[in-house]
Amino acid sequence: MSLHGLSLVAGSPGRPGGVTFRAVNPATAQPLEPVFHEASLAEAGHALDAAATAFADYRARPAADRARLLDTIAAEIEGLGDALLQRAHAETGLPLARLTGERGRTCGQLRLFAQLVRDGSWVDARIDPALPDRQPLPRPDLRRMLIPLGPVVVFGSSNFPLAFSVAGGDTASAFAAGCPVVVKAHRAHPGTSELVAGAITRAVTACGLPAGLFSLIHGGGASIGIALVKHPTTTAVGFTGSHAAGRALFDAAASRPQPIPVFAEMSSINPVFLLPGAVRERGAALAQGLLASFTLGVGQFCTKPGLVFALRGPDTDTFVAKLAELVRAAPSGTMLTHGIREAFLEHRARITAVPGVEALAQGGGTADIARTELPPSVATTPARNFLRHPALATEAFGPFALVLLADSADEFQACAAALEGQLTATLHGTAADLAGARALLATLEQKAGRIVINGFPTGVEVCPAMNHGGPYPATTDVRFTSVGTAAIQRFVRPVCYQSLPDDLLPPALQNANPLGLLRLVNGAPTREPL
Amino acid sequence: MSLHGLSLVAGSPGRPGGVTFRAVNPATAQPLEPVFHEASLAEAGHALDAAATAFADYRARPAADRARLLDTIAAEIEGLGDALLQRAHAETGLPLARLTGERGRTCGQLRLFAQLVRDGSWVDARIDPALPDRQPLPRPDLRRMLIPLGPVVVFGSSNFPLAFSVAGGDTASAFAAGCPVVVKAHRAHPGTSELVAGAITRAVTACGLPAGLFSLIHGGGASIGIALVKHPTTTAVGFTGSHAAGRALFDAAASRPQPIPVFAEMSSINPVFLLPGAVRERGAALAQGLLASFTLGVGQFCTKPGLVFALRGPDTDTFVAKLAELVRAAPSGTMLTHGIREAFLEHRARITAVPGVEALAQGGGTADIARTELPPSVATTPARNFLRHPALATEAFGPFALVLLADSADEFQACAAALEGQLTATLHGTAADLAGARALLATLEQKAGRIVINGFPTGVEVCPAMNHGGPYPATTDVRFTSVGTAAIQRFVRPVCYQSLPDDLLPPALQNANPLGLLRLVNGAPTREPL
Repeated sequence: MSLHGLSLVAGSPGRPGGVTFRAVNPATAQPLEPVFHEASLAEAGHALDAAATAFADYRARPAADRARLLDTIAAEIEGLGDALLQRAHAETGLPLARLTGERGRTCGQLRLFAQLVRDGSWVDARIDPALPDRQPLPRPDLRRMLIPLGPVVVFGSSNFPLAFSVAGGDTASAFAAGCPVVVKAHRAHPGTSELVAGAITRAVTACGLPAGLFSLIHGGGASIGIALVKHPTTTAVGFTGSHAAGRALFDAAASRPQPIPVFAEMSSINPVFLLPGAVRERGAALAQGLLASFTLGVGQFCTKPGLVFALRGPDTDTFVAKLAELVRAAPSGTMLTHGIREAFLEHRARITAVPGVEALAQGGGTADIARTELPPSVATTPARNFLRHPALATEAFGPFALVLLADSADEFQACAAALEGQLTATLHGTAADLAGARALLATLEQKAGRIVINGFPTGVEVCPAMNHGGPYPATTDVRFTSVGTAAIQRFVRPVCYQSLPDDLLPPALQNANPLGLLRLVNGAPTREPL
Repeated sequence: MSLHGLSLVAGSPGRPGGVTFRAVNPATAQPLEPVFHEASLAEAGHALDAAATAFADYRARPAADRARLLDTIAAEIEGLGDALLQRAHAETGLPLARLTGERGRTCGQLRLFAQLVRDGSWVDARIDPALPDRQPLPRPDLRRMLIPLGPVVVFGSSNFPLAFSVAGGDTASAFAAGCPVVVKAHRAHPGTSELVAGAITRAVTACGLPAGLFSLIHGGGASIGIALVKHPTTTAVGFTGSHAAGRALFDAAASRPQPIPVFAEMSSINPVFLLPGAVRERGAALAQGLLASFTLGVGQFCTKPGLVFALRGPDTDTFVAKLAELVRAAPSGTMLTHGIREAFLEHRARITAVPGVEALAQGGGTADIARTELPPSVATTPARNFLRHPALATEAFGPFALVLLADSADEFQACAAALEGQLTATLHGTAADLAGARALLATLEQKAGRIVINGFPTGVEVCPAMNHGGPYPATTDVRFTSVGTAAIQRFVRPVCYQSLPDDLLPPALQNANPLGLLRLVNGAPTREPL
């Protein structure tokens, strides 16, 4: 499948001529064909102007049109066949099996949003009919629903080249909400991005929708990203990446003349608390599960468990010894990019340099820098160190976990209270352990967006009940999820119609309830017409 | 009823000793007893620390406890009797009849939130049960609901001393959500604030809740407000007031190490479009309705219609003449404060100084500055001026409206497209007018949070379908309403529990559905147990 290496601005290829770059195969350190061309600021602006124009059309379309677009994108992505997986494999070093699964998740997610949009009740329609005879004043007819915000800028992530990138959860939920999307492609996988952008563009055309509904922008450095966020027609931003980059986008958005929301999913160390009964009963299985979780995707998951708290004692000693043994036997893996590898080593060094932190084990085998490889590793330290050294609470994005040994359950509680915001917090315990951990649970609930019991935080289900979010710095907006159907709520706003004639109302709010939605009428949920 | 003039910090009176001030009766320009004492920054911090402690208790309480608190506050406010109304009258100059209505609205609002909390389904419970046999991977049990954010800082407004102040909509919805509240009292009605704060404090005690659940802070200038917003335990802010003050709070919140949401309801000129059929059929009634709406509360409503667009022609000439006649016959009114009166005169002067703006009429009678009075007034200008002079799009908070005469429906459309964000936009038209105004309607929907047909924007119903919000600068967050039951959504966040044992789950998510909530199970709404 040939690649042109250009941005895609409202269905048309961008201009060559500016700065160029190539993707690099991390498993070989070799640059890949073709050359990619960074978009100009003018092209980025043109993409957003076209998105604003397309918005006026797209937002007025029936839900069926949005659903068809989402389904068609999924089919177009599947239509790319193995070429997509092979390019993604070359650009990221991720195994083909993983990428096959990620493609399934990406297409499944698009279809889930199509289903949500067809069902339609997500618009939270509310009707309070007129009370003309009410005293002292009549009540007018009031009807409210959620409508799309406008053009959304999405920043592709490094670690999910499909599921959190060009046609990932942000794009799917924005299209579902009724918003056009401009994607800033991640520089590490521009070819994968171009292939998926082509699929979206073909779907937009096939569905008879305006070309401005979607653009893909190649670019490097912060300037084009900031320009996309600052563009006057941008109404919201989705981002997955580092704390520094996410915060820069947030600050840019907040300092606009008209501030806009930024949904940045940034930094999380995903603490795991091992309660004593669980360590006693299944310490070896915990060590195995933990290794699998913190080395999944070579540790490059936002939900990677980076902190493991356990109570000192012989059972924990056995668990730690088992973990060390497993880590020593574990192979190295290829990181996504050379830069991520370097950043990981720097962050890990900052953690292991803290007094009292001791290396516990490192994976066997050679870690070939020419293959961007890294071995898994674990270190250990007394839990009380956690309260003294903020460096221990920072993320090292890669295959590393820190085991913190506590002297008491009170120390667990103190460490939990000292945590920053997290995507997840995990407890392993027997029924008796958990019954005694209510206070710990209550503290963790204030720190994390998802509480995991007797499982591991990696693996984020795409479903209505998922919450992939959390207090800052896990995200910039604790009130929203970036995974699951509730992600659509990021890109909408309510509007209220007072005394609008029935035929001018959107179908969702018409008396006859032609869409068959579940609506709140006089405060009570019903599918009945008025 | 005697007033102590002190802040109320977690149930205890603040310290005297700092800067002092008095309320002023705007109708007499006389200062009122007693002297009020500004809180120190330490007291403000203490209030928020106490709120954080109270939060740990309050958030764990059953919904019935929150509902009882809200009902008890309403009863305590009613128990203050006429003393409350008289003090509010003395501090604001608002008529007793209006204040009686506003008290009813305030207590009704508290009880509406009590009802919402008792009903409970607002927590948006979602359950996706485990699928242990799913291929290729099992699905864990996932359950999600909305939980409270934490301590909320509320800034009382000048123009609604009861309904948007100490126990107003922000406080009611925050308490309903499960959040403690620290109110910064508005300096113009500190006595009213103290009385209502006393009612809340008694309710907190009567319900056996921690005293830190509520504090009232007196203060002047920006510093204490910024300190409240910047305090590390503050998790959200509610504000009603000027654009400058709201933006300053927003900027302070966004620049925190951990940014927090600010729900500032700020500035709106609430455009009204008069379509030709309506002007022809009921021009005189429109003039009457408009006068009543833009002079309600002496024009000091955030939904005051400040811009009136009409098409040139003989019917409009008649309408304009009628409006001028009515305005000339209308009495002056006492403004809330001398400062608001001065600011109004300055803003109106900026508007009327625009070339092409002509004074049309001013109310008769004398406007006594010693009574803080202002006459109603209207001016007129060609609508095309609106596209040239940004000053015409600014709010003059007081009894003034600008009539803009358009040459064509296209000019309507161009002016609508040039509007900034608004709380409301209004259309008056016959059925035929409205059928031809779909494009205008679509544009206004992008500019305003509420569309009003053949009515006036003042009068904001408190109900599930209300949206009192809108694009910036109407508010700092277009995604939320500050009036109606959906206002609770500002102060909550989702949390997901993965594989939590049933007895450790919150009742809202337990298998048996003990609260009888409407929940989304496998994506479908149901009240059935699992």
